[in-house]
Amino acid sequence: MLSVMHEHDGPLTRLRRSHEQCVLELLRKHGPLSRAELGARSGLSRTTLYDIVAGLVGSGTVVAGTPHVEVRKRGRPVEKLSLNPAAGEAVGIDFARRAVHVAAVNFAHEVIGSASEAHASDLSWPERVDIAGRLLATLATGSSDDSAGGGRGRKAAVHLDALSAIGVGVVGPTTDPGSENAHAQGIDGLPDLLRKRFGVPVLLDNNTRLAALAEAVWGAAADSSDVLYLRLSHGVGGGLVVGGALHRGRYGLSGEFGHITVDPAGRQCECGKTGCLETRASLDAVLCRYREAGGRADNLDQFLDATSAAERPALEVLERVGSEIGGVLAAVCHAVGPGVIVVGGELAEAGPALLEPVERALRQHLMPMARHHVDVRRATLGEAGSALGGIALVLHESPLLSHYPQPVSEENA
Amino acid sequence: MLSVMHEHDGPLTRLRRSHEQCVLELLRKHGPLSRAELGARSGLSRTTLYDIVAGLVGSGTVVAGTPHVEVRKRGRPVEKLSLNPAAGEAVGIDFARRAVHVAAVNFAHEVIGSASEAHASDLSWPERVDIAGRLLATLATGSSDDSAGGGRGRKAAVHLDALSAIGVGVVGPTTDPGSENAHAQGIDGLPDLLRKRFGVPVLLDNNTRLAALAEAVWGAAADSSDVLYLRLSHGVGGGLVVGGALHRGRYGLSGEFGHITVDPAGRQCECGKTGCLETRASLDAVLCRYREAGGRADNLDQFLDATSAAERPALEVLERVGSEIGGVLAAVCHAVGPGVIVVGGELAEAGPALLEPVERALRQHLMPMARHHVDVRRATLGEAGSALGGIALVLHESPLLSHYPQPVSEENA
Repeated sequence: MLSVMHEHDGPLTRLRRSHEQCVLELLRKHGPLSRAELGARSGLSRTTLYDIVAGLVGSGTVVAGTPHVEVRKRGRPVEKLSLNPAAGEAVGIDFARRAVHVAAVNFAHEVIGSASEAHASDLSWPERVDIAGRLLATLATGSSDDSAGGGRGRKAAVHLDALSAIGVGVVGPTTDPGSENAHAQGIDGLPDLLRKRFGVPVLLDNNTRLAALAEAVWGAAADSSDVLYLRLSHGVGGGLVVGGALHRGRYGLSGEFGHITVDPAGRQCECGKTGCLETRASLDAVLCRYREAGGRADNLDQFLDATSAAERPALEVLERVGSEIGGVLAAVCHAVGPGVIVVGGELAEAGPALLEPVERALRQHLMPMARHHVDVRRATLGEAGSALGGIALVLHESPLLSHYPQPVSEENA
Repeated sequence: MLSVMHEHDGPLTRLRRSHEQCVLELLRKHGPLSRAELGARSGLSRTTLYDIVAGLVGSGTVVAGTPHVEVRKRGRPVEKLSLNPAAGEAVGIDFARRAVHVAAVNFAHEVIGSASEAHASDLSWPERVDIAGRLLATLATGSSDDSAGGGRGRKAAVHLDALSAIGVGVVGPTTDPGSENAHAQGIDGLPDLLRKRFGVPVLLDNNTRLAALAEAVWGAAADSSDVLYLRLSHGVGGGLVVGGALHRGRYGLSGEFGHITVDPAGRQCECGKTGCLETRASLDAVLCRYREAGGRADNLDQFLDATSAAERPALEVLERVGSEIGGVLAAVCHAVGPGVIVVGGELAEAGPALLEPVERALRQHLMPMARHHVDVRRATLGEAGSALGGIALVLHESPLLSHYPQPVSEENA
């Protein structure tokens, strides 16, 4: 862990540093805040707070004013404070099965770029890290054309020199690094590889979980701190955000909605048991059910075209799939009580033809008292979601990674 | 919210106070700690920490030494520090449907007494609060005989003068005080009633959720910070402890395991839908199923006797009930990933005849990767659980409620 407190400082310097830290931490975590909001959240007195803020603005660490203005009832604009966009950046990388996605934000919480590159599924980790480095360099020179379709490629340059941490998403469970699971996935050495390449601390998590966090921070559920995210893709999984923080579970085995049993007598699942939601709602399963119902589609695009054309077998399959998904989501809702359910992954592109049956079944299986307490929404962040979630992880969970000179530690030696 | 920081103090006094606060907070939250543990958790330097601790021991706030001694490898005993048992106490009250339970702990985290009294289900809130006051006074004079069976009635006296906060459990959802729900339950005025009676801040939560927290702190799952608690009683409910803290959900509607659908074509549930777990695993439902299977029992005791006698219909009913419970728990486990499942409530008294089928079905419905990552255990705290959970709530979530002179606020005016 990094620490910004220096033992040789006098007590007054330390006190001031700890107040500065508090203010920066709040701005880093919540984005732009007014002085009043900072006062309420920090517990600092008005005098102390104004003094600290003046110092931070003077040093260029914090900027005040536009574009974050709100209007008070009496019409005087309230100045918002935020971290200086040039003061440091956070980067997220998603190592998906067949692609690398990267994204970057400045400390004002603005997404300043994202990029993607597809690759063969058997590519080695050093090669994948090379791709990530190349994509980030593209962002750094401001030449991102975002050709792989992330859709967020603004032309602002990332200052890799100011990079403070990297949040990384990988496929599969991640809680026990060094465990058999991590070893089987080959991600044991990944944090080291990244630290050597970028020279900054690395935070690692499951990429579907990170997509959940990103939707709760920047996406479809940006207004909620209790979010259930379901991803319907080649596999079916998801993540929970609880009180604004990523929920992991005791062994990182949370959000495994795809392996909740729908029908014990159902088909064999890759996980080893039978009748899991994944055997009914994964892309392959849906295409298979569609063909069994007399439909013709070799891939998802054709199926989605049939759905758009309101073709009957396609809609009926989505009705049945949605109904099963809604039943599973209701069970999870009773346990966890989220405010928003976000549905993402390629199958969510079917839109209302899928989401409406999901919602109907959800409400049918929810106790009446809970029925109006949860919204169902489609994910908005697309394939950049997990990389953005890596950034959210850095902003929410890393120790303060600021402009202060940092003592050399194992993390960044 | 209470605050122990005083604006008129100089910066050095404030710095020292904030360090003292930090040390007291750690001891309050974790119980006895060595100086080394305090150093690691507080981030304070050795010099500062020893200085702060010396002051706190000198003022009698913190005590050092026995009975909390561990032996180092080289044989020198490590002195543990804890809050002075006489320095303050926390009290928990559980307003159950037909009984009031109270419990008290000292600041060293030792349970120093509990007591219970049954009452009619239509008793008014002021009368229930009177019962609570009487029971607490009994503990205060050290004359608790714990006649109602809580089983934890040590004879040490509670110092009600030193009382710092009360954690209170009630039946039903509690998150939205002032909402229709709170109003329908009649608990709108309860916090005020208690504050006036005891003159201290009141923290309120659902009593089943509090039982979950208590099992995670003092009970069957005291070694785990990710706990799923299921209560099988007249109703079926539960609670989740996530990373050591109580999970509430967006609208306080979490832990409603009893309303997860087992069979959509099943019987009508009190909640308004059909086939909920509660319609199959509540005490009434189990007795009904037992009679349908040819068994004879007018009440739970007779059913439990039949179970103890290994009577076939009783065991078969528990096998089926346990299997359904295990299926529901597996769904929740996939979502949440707890380390321990605690089963409480009167039906848990059936012991292995219930828990073994629960565990079998759980493992059958869990994805193989997760099968060995969760323990199933019987609750250990009995009917005092929710009152103890109220205390845990105070110790974990209240602002520092210490020996410092407290500014008068709305909370304790």
